Formats: sequence, C-alpha cells, structure tokens
Amino acid sequence: MRRADSSSAYAASGAGDLLQLLRDERPRTRAELAKLTGLARSTVGARVDALLATGLLAPSGEAASTGGRPPARFAFNPSARVVIGADIGATHGRLALTDLSGRPIAEIGQPLDITTGPGPVLDWVVSASQQLLGEAGREPRELIGVGIGLPGPVDHSSGRPMRPPIMPGWDGYDVPEHVRHTFDVPVLVDNDVNIMALGEHATAHPDVEHLLFVKVATGIGAGIISSGRLHRGAVGAAGDLGHVAALHAPQVLCSCGNTGCLEAVASGPAISSSLKDLGIATASNRDIVDLVRGGNIPAAHAVREAGRMIGEVLATCVSLLNPEVIVIGGSLAQAGESLIAGVREVVYRRSLPLATGSLQIVAATTGEQAGVIGAATMVVQQVLTADRVDSVIARQSAS
Amino acid sequence: MRRADSSSAYAASGAGDLLQLLRDERPRTRAELAKLTGLARSTVGARVDALLATGLLAPSGEAASTGGRPPARFAFNPSARVVIGADIGATHGRLALTDLSGRPIAEIGQPLDITTGPGPVLDWVVSASQQLLGEAGREPRELIGVGIGLPGPVDHSSGRPMRPPIMPGWDGYDVPEHVRHTFDVPVLVDNDVNIMALGEHATAHPDVEHLLFVKVATGIGAGIISSGRLHRGAVGAAGDLGHVAALHAPQVLCSCGNTGCLEAVASGPAISSSLKDLGIATASNRDIVDLVRGGNIPAAHAVREAGRMIGEVLATCVSLLNPEVIVIGGSLAQAGESLIAGVREVVYRRSLPLATGSLQIVAATTGEQAGVIGAATMVVQQVLTADRVDSVIARQSAS
Repeated sequence: MRRADSSSAYAASGAGDLLQLLRDERPRTRAELAKLTGLARSTVGARVDALLATGLLAPSGEAASTGGRPPARFAFNPSARVVIGADIGATHGRLALTDLSGRPIAEIGQPLDITTGPGPVLDWVVSASQQLLGEAGREPRELIGVGIGLPGPVDHSSGRPMRPPIMPGWDGYDVPEHVRHTFDVPVLVDNDVNIMALGEHATAHPDVEHLLFVKVATGIGAGIISSGRLHRGAVGAAGDLGHVAALHAPQVLCSCGNTGCLEAVASGPAISSSLKDLGIATASNRDIVDLVRGGNIPAAHAVREAGRMIGEVLATCVSLLNPEVIVIGGSLAQAGESLIAGVREVVYRRSLPLATGSLQIVAATTGEQAGVIGAATMVVQQVLTADRVDSVIARQSAS
Repeated sequence: MRRADSSSAYAASGAGDLLQLLRDERPRTRAELAKLTGLARSTVGARVDALLATGLLAPSGEAASTGGRPPARFAFNPSARVVIGADIGATHGRLALTDLSGRPIAEIGQPLDITTGPGPVLDWVVSASQQLLGEAGREPRELIGVGIGLPGPVDHSSGRPMRPPIMPGWDGYDVPEHVRHTFDVPVLVDNDVNIMALGEHATAHPDVEHLLFVKVATGIGAGIISSGRLHRGAVGAAGDLGHVAALHAPQVLCSCGNTGCLEAVASGPAISSSLKDLGIATASNRDIVDLVRGGNIPAAHAVREAGRMIGEVLATCVSLLNPEVIVIGGSLAQAGESLIAGVREVVYRRSLPLATGSLQIVAATTGEQAGVIGAATMVVQQVLTADRVDSVIARQSAS
C-alpha cells in the first residue's frame, strides 16, 4: 500500500524522532515517552508499534507498577541491523561488521596495495564484507550502510577521492557506485584521519564536544570534532596539517614545493632521514617505534623533536579551536611518551592559560580499530537520523 | 488553563517545528505545509492557528486557485517581536533594536569606558534599550531577548566574562542577571569577535557554511562559523589568535610574556610602533587608516607587512579549517587593500591548492553594524528554536 495521509501514517511518520530519544539505550515505558515528548499516548503507541515492527526498538524488561500488570519498557536495539566499516590505508585493508552502536561483531584485515587502483581494492571490500556477513550469520538485507576510509582527500558528499597524491587511478572515482553494485545501501566515504577521529571520539571520548585527533605516521593530518560533529570544511580538506609551516623547523624542501612543511620535518620519513644522518638505519615507522621502545636515545630524541615541531603547529590549532582533548594517533604514537611529551612541552608553553587550563593531550587508545569503528560510526550517524528511519518504516509498510 | 494532553495541545506542540520551516519568509498555504511536512491537514491547521495567535505567523497574500475561494498563504512575520543587540567595545557602546531577522529598527551609540566596570556600562545598556523601545513604539513585552558582545573572553553558557585583560571589575560578573532585573528575557553574552562573525555571516554570507572572521584592530582575534554555526570551543576561547606565534615575525616581547605573538607584531599598536621608528607619529588605528588612505607609502608598507604576518597564521587556519570565506574586519580593515593584499599574498602561497581553490578573502562589509546585528542574530538563533517557540505558545495559552 502507498503511504497515505491517514492518521496512523502520520503518527508513524514521527517514529524517527522518537528513536533519536531512545538512542541512549535506556529502556522507557510508553507513559515515560509520552511525558518526555509531550505527545499524546495514542501517538506514542503508534510510533512504538512502527519501531517494534522494524526491530529497531525492542521490549526491555518491565517497569515497577503501582498495581495491576506492570507496563512494558522499550529500548533501542542496536543489534537490529548491521554496518560495514572499512579502513583502507596505503598498504593495508581492515574491515569490521558492527552493530548500530559501532561495536564490532566480526573483523578481517590483510595487506593491500592502494596503488592497484579502485577496482581490485573495492572488490576486496565487497567480498570481505560478504565473508563477514556470512561468518556472523547476518543477511545482506540487514546491512544499513557501508563506511569507507581512504588515505587521501575525499569529497564526502559524492564519495569521490580528490587528487589523492598516493592513490593512482582513484582521482574522481565513484566509490559508492562500485560498492552499490553489490549492496544497495548508503555508502559513505571519507579520508582515513576523519574516520580515525570519529572512531576515537565514539569509543574513548563520547562526551567530549571539541576534540582534535592528530595522526602522526608517514603523513601528518588532523580530524576535527566541533560540537560533537566532524568539521570537514568547504571541500573536505579540513585538517590537512601536513603542509603547514612549523615554527623553528629546518628549511627542508617538501614534496609540495614549499619548505619547512610539518610533514617534511616531523613525519616518519623525516625522522628516518635525521636518524640516517646519525648512522642509524630505519626502514619503516615500526623500526623507529621499536628503537624508541628499546631505549635508543638518539631515536627518542628525534621523535621528541618531531613532537615539538608538531606542537608548534598544534599550539596555533589550540588557540584557534580551543579543544577539550587532543588525541595523538597514527603509527608513531606507538613510540610512547617521547612524541606526546614533545607536543605537550610546546603547546603548554605557546598557548594561553585559558585554552590550556582544561586541555588534555593524550595518546589514541583505539589503536588499529579506530578506522573501522569510525567508518561504521559515520554510517550510523548519517543513516540513523529521524528522516531516514521514517523512510525505512515507510518502505517496510509499503512492502 | 494548564496545557493538557488533549489532541489540540498536542497539535500545537509541534508549531515550533512548523515555524522553523517558515523562517525563510516564503509564504505557503496550509496544503503546501501539509505536503512539505507530511503532517495531516488538521494538524497543520491547529499549528498554523497557534502561530497566528502569537503573531509569529501572518497572512501573506493569496495563492492561485483552481476555482472557488483562493487558499490563504502564511509567512513568518519577523516584525512580530523585537530583539536588542549590544556591542560594547573598550571605548564605545552601540545598541540596535532589531526585528526577528536581525534587521535594525533603531540604533544608538556613544563613547563608553569599559573600565568603569559592569554596573555603569550595563545600566547604560538597559536605559538605552528602554529609549530605543520607546522611540520605536514597541512594548518591553515584545522583547524576546538581549544579546551583548564584550571585548574579552566570555563563558557563553553563563554569560560571565572570564579573566578579561582590559575589563577591570568584570571577571566572573553575572551580566545576564544585571540586565534581567529590568528585562525578564534570555540575555546572551559573547565576545565581540564572535558577534561580529555572526553579524557578517548573517548579513553578507548567509549561505556560507564555513567562514572565518578576523578582527584586526588594537587586538587580533577570529570568529569561526563551522557548518553554519559559531564554534566557541571548550571554554569559549576559540579564535584567540592574538597570541599565536607568527612565522618570520620579529621577536618582539608581547604583553603575555611570549615573543613574536601576532598581536605584538601586526596589531594597530604594533604598526604605530614601527611607524614611530620611521619618525611617523600615529595616536590611533584611525590615524594609521587615514595615512594609508592618504597615500603615505611607509604606512601602506607597514600595514601590508602586518597583513603578511597575519597571513602566515591564517595559512595554518586555512589548512586546518578549510573555510569558504575569510572576512577581514576591525578598524584596520578600513585601510583598504593594503592589509588584505598582504594576507592574500601569504595564504595563497602557503596553503594547498585544494583548500585555496575556492577560498575567498574579502573585507567586512557590515562595518560598525556587524556587532549589534550579530548580537541580535545570536539571540534570534537561540530563542527562536522549535522548543522555545512551543513554550511561548504554551505560556500564551496559559494566560
């Protein structure tokens, strides 16, 4: 049947709003929901019924009663649907199947070469997704969306990479269309740092309104959470700190043509290069981290100096954004306190007490999972809005 | 009568949502509103009636009809209520009475010394407000809120200044309480740069999602519009660029104890000081502006050099935030192209093409009105939300 302008269709059309209230996973009775929303009992009843039919709401124990049959409680049911979160790096691919709270149900990962182009890489995303769904015993129709992080700039609104420097063949490629050949659901794409920021925010700092996530690895970049939401900027280029000039930095020539860029003086390759000048050979970020952890003093010194140069740039970011938390992630954050100590030293010296008084600078805690959880979180945040839930319900009652 | 759980009270309780749709000031019929919202005709009718009773909605011409009596159209009526916007500087006070679109109805301004403390200054705000209401023939009960900008850091949630450097006696003062002794309405307070950013955004760039407003005067600061909303940061200190270290800046000692801060090398007093070294005396920012406009080459050079140092800091801000528009305001922006040319020169050299490709760097256009319009806009944005409109309606039907 088509959705008509009848009173029951109307009552159900606000079900999405009701679900937003219930996203905190606290069970509530119909009467509590009526009081909370100011809606008539009959309207709440119709909306609860519509949500129960989708499975997004489920009965959850009984409330204490003043006599008679105790009233039923209902709560958001995060396992009603599933999400795929994919984290594609330059040389790895990771995937998680999560519930609607972004909690992983099953995971998979393998080495992957981004330079083989979008075809092979996205085919792997699709087949690995099918494998995870199978392993978890979930049907493709239970999937509400796919989130993908890529190691380069992405136009989030279209899901297409924009002139990504290390991704030959990907420029302007329609990533969502490729995936939607197999899964007819929303496919959301963003750069890897933004999804790591979303992942760290969702798992380690869910109540923080203003957070800055900084990835320090082969590249350096940031993801900005402003008022609880990702700030992507005009063309999705926000957080691109790699080519910001660091104060007091050596005037090393950068691949972008400028000198003294943060990436040219404080990234993994830059640290490797300064260690090489001291006769210490490192072939990867992992080698640097291992040296520092093993107590190598020149390596610890080089990482701390990189932290100081990153701190010079972050001091400006702190004055501009006044975040509550700065999270330092990426492979070099595994080097322990050396990197963060350098960052803290400069930020606390260069920023005003008002902005640093309550500022925390901490290491990322989600580790390798940040990307996949963030990609799934991105999907949940955009797909589980009131309007989208209403359209799910409308589709369901039409079928 | 108390608001009951009757169907008419329920229907009216969503009137605020309906008003949000109508804020674009386009007239619509009941049928168009029903189609737009998916609500039943009877519900739309009840909500329209509730809004008509408040005056927030008003009849607005008639629609073309397919026969019979043409259906009535309704539109948001911005003149139904009024707002006070106050812009308090170090040495001036300005006030505007505006309608609900932030358009000034009446204005007043006078020299005012912030160091006389909150009592005398806020007493002036109150008496000048009463004067404007009287002149415009509006009743105090038509006032929906007062917005105030102050020249220092403000905790927006409480309306109290926080350790403001140039405002003796104001630290922690309860500004809203003082004003509410006379006007029992929401009183919202923020720093002057944030309200100027809101004012420029509302009047000159209403459709821009990501905007950075930079005030260059005796102090230097920024207001950030992120996704159409003001980004205030964890403690309201966002945008505090005055004490950021500018790259390539002379190591001048700043009042904050650090060296090379932007304010110490590129503010009005810093420019005055560098002109003094050349034997050119200036007593105010106005003097500098007049020299530049009069074709004084050393003055134009000094202002352009200040623009370059501001540009070094803004290049980092562009990489971090990826704004669509940077607006340069404050008294030194009146110096014409010299300041902005210096800013543009460095920003376009130092930032990546992806972020600068669509970036505009423009002068503020609202001039002295930016503050009062922004303060009023702040009130409209927070008071005219769906929930608040519903509570206005509930109060009205209770009385």
